[in-house]
Amino acid sequence: MDMKIIIDGFGGDRAPVEVLKGARLAADQYHVSLLITGDEEKLKQAAQQAAVSLEGISLHHAPDVISVEEDPASIMKEHKNCSMAVGLRLLSEGEGDAFVSAGSTGALVVGSSLIVKRIKGIKRAALATMIPTPNGCYMLLDAGANAECRPEMLVQFGIMGSAYMERIRKVSSPKVGLINIGEEPTKGLELQISAYELMAKAPFNFTGNVEARDVPGGAVDVAVADGFTGNIVLKLTEGLGSSMSKQIKGIFTKSISTKFGALFLLKGLDEFKKAWITPNTAAHLYWELPNR
Amino acid sequence: MDMKIIIDGFGGDRAPVEVLKGARLAADQYHVSLLITGDEEKLKQAAQQAAVSLEGISLHHAPDVISVEEDPASIMKEHKNCSMAVGLRLLSEGEGDAFVSAGSTGALVVGSSLIVKRIKGIKRAALATMIPTPNGCYMLLDAGANAECRPEMLVQFGIMGSAYMERIRKVSSPKVGLINIGEEPTKGLELQISAYELMAKAPFNFTGNVEARDVPGGAVDVAVADGFTGNIVLKLTEGLGSSMSKQIKGIFTKSISTKFGALFLLKGLDEFKKAWITPNTAAHLYWELPNR
Repeated sequence: MDMKIIIDGFGGDRAPVEVLKGARLAADQYHVSLLITGDEEKLKQAAQQAAVSLEGISLHHAPDVISVEEDPASIMKEHKNCSMAVGLRLLSEGEGDAFVSAGSTGALVVGSSLIVKRIKGIKRAALATMIPTPNGCYMLLDAGANAECRPEMLVQFGIMGSAYMERIRKVSSPKVGLINIGEEPTKGLELQISAYELMAKAPFNFTGNVEARDVPGGAVDVAVADGFTGNIVLKLTEGLGSSMSKQIKGIFTKSISTKFGALFLLKGLDEFKKAWITPNTAAHLYWELPNR
Repeated sequence: MDMKIIIDGFGGDRAPVEVLKGARLAADQYHVSLLITGDEEKLKQAAQQAAVSLEGISLHHAPDVISVEEDPASIMKEHKNCSMAVGLRLLSEGEGDAFVSAGSTGALVVGSSLIVKRIKGIKRAALATMIPTPNGCYMLLDAGANAECRPEMLVQFGIMGSAYMERIRKVSSPKVGLINIGEEPTKGLELQISAYELMAKAPFNFTGNVEARDVPGGAVDVAVADGFTGNIVLKLTEGLGSSMSKQIKGIFTKSISTKFGALFLLKGLDEFKKAWITPNTAAHLYWELPNR
């Protein structure tokens, strides 16, 4: 697969150095072609200072930067030449297959919706996140783009999530569940009750309401929620992953004998840690359906 | 402390046998006096069959049972003589200091509100749960009694939670946070925005919005939420605890050398498991403030 990924060189904490380092790792490990947007001079300087080789990585000049403090809508006006806007424009022009940014989530949602544009008929963009389960992963959406949702929006999130899991993750007939406080169709607030009715008739494998208790075990492939609830689920998952890992580490380092025991488990624990301890939620993946 | 605890003998799965076994353990370990409600003959029979001694445990006859399928309001009418209703009545008459039931949550909320009655001025009862953190625990409320809440209800949950943590758990000036999708006062839905304003003026140590990411680490002593959000937090915590424990178990039992390593960690892991793997949410503690 000859994939080209566009990267926002100035998104996120410690940009552009950490972005450059990450791009280097990706280029070496996955053999994808990469294009980084941002102030070309600054990118080159940062790469040189950090001794990061830019071999096989192209740069695309974008003179401006948009910060998380700024009005997300300014990506269309004052900051239309920021590294994020330029990256999204390149994506919309077919210059790449995906765009990655660790920058302002709000600006990314606005920019994605207005520059790359939504799939025809889709009312709102959603933030979709893959979360690990014991046997794979599930897609959570909306993880926070739309705090307030209407029932039809949840149906569309289900359609997009299902299509993604089927085409990209090769899950056949992905199970789509609505995150709710009980399994019965009458559970939840007005939003969930109405969404349940619509989702039952939607063109995907709707398995009904799914309780938050069953989501982490992999009960569904796609967990649909309004952005408020989804954001709580995402952040609690991160927080618990980190907090429980700390507790486990405490057990391992309690005494000499536990440290000795832990030696035999290092590899497995390392995998566990990699899967669970995500540094923060700032890194969002903007994805599109193929053949839109 | 000479405490008397009233127990619903017919609440929860596998009642009354499991309830009797649990009561026996409590009587032996904590030296509290216990009173179990339910059909006296059936309780005695079950105790005999399971070889559970009733020494030091009193029984109080209640001929009826209310199931989770029944209308919660029936605890006041058709089922006013069920084991739960009788237990709550005994509590309201001062026959005990606390009441424990693993039965219908809905009936428990209705019965607590109407039989024991709410603290004067408190609009709604909340389900409060203690959740472990690396350094102790925090109280989550409302964990699901009121799916839909008004801002004033959240303020009252903060007052009750703060009083509990201060008086019962001896936390001085407990930190009370509002679970939200961001720290700024303007974050969240209308409910959170209005509640924030009111909580900032409330008679407790309001530390502002708390993100779900920071809750499991113990950022606050009392985490306030509407019952929908709180229920999601509770159940996701349970589900992740169980799912992550399974993954860790998988690491430990992967090969002979990892099993050998795990031997050195058994005690610590056992504690971890005890703290995290709760069998289900059916067991709710109904608590009251002292000196109401």
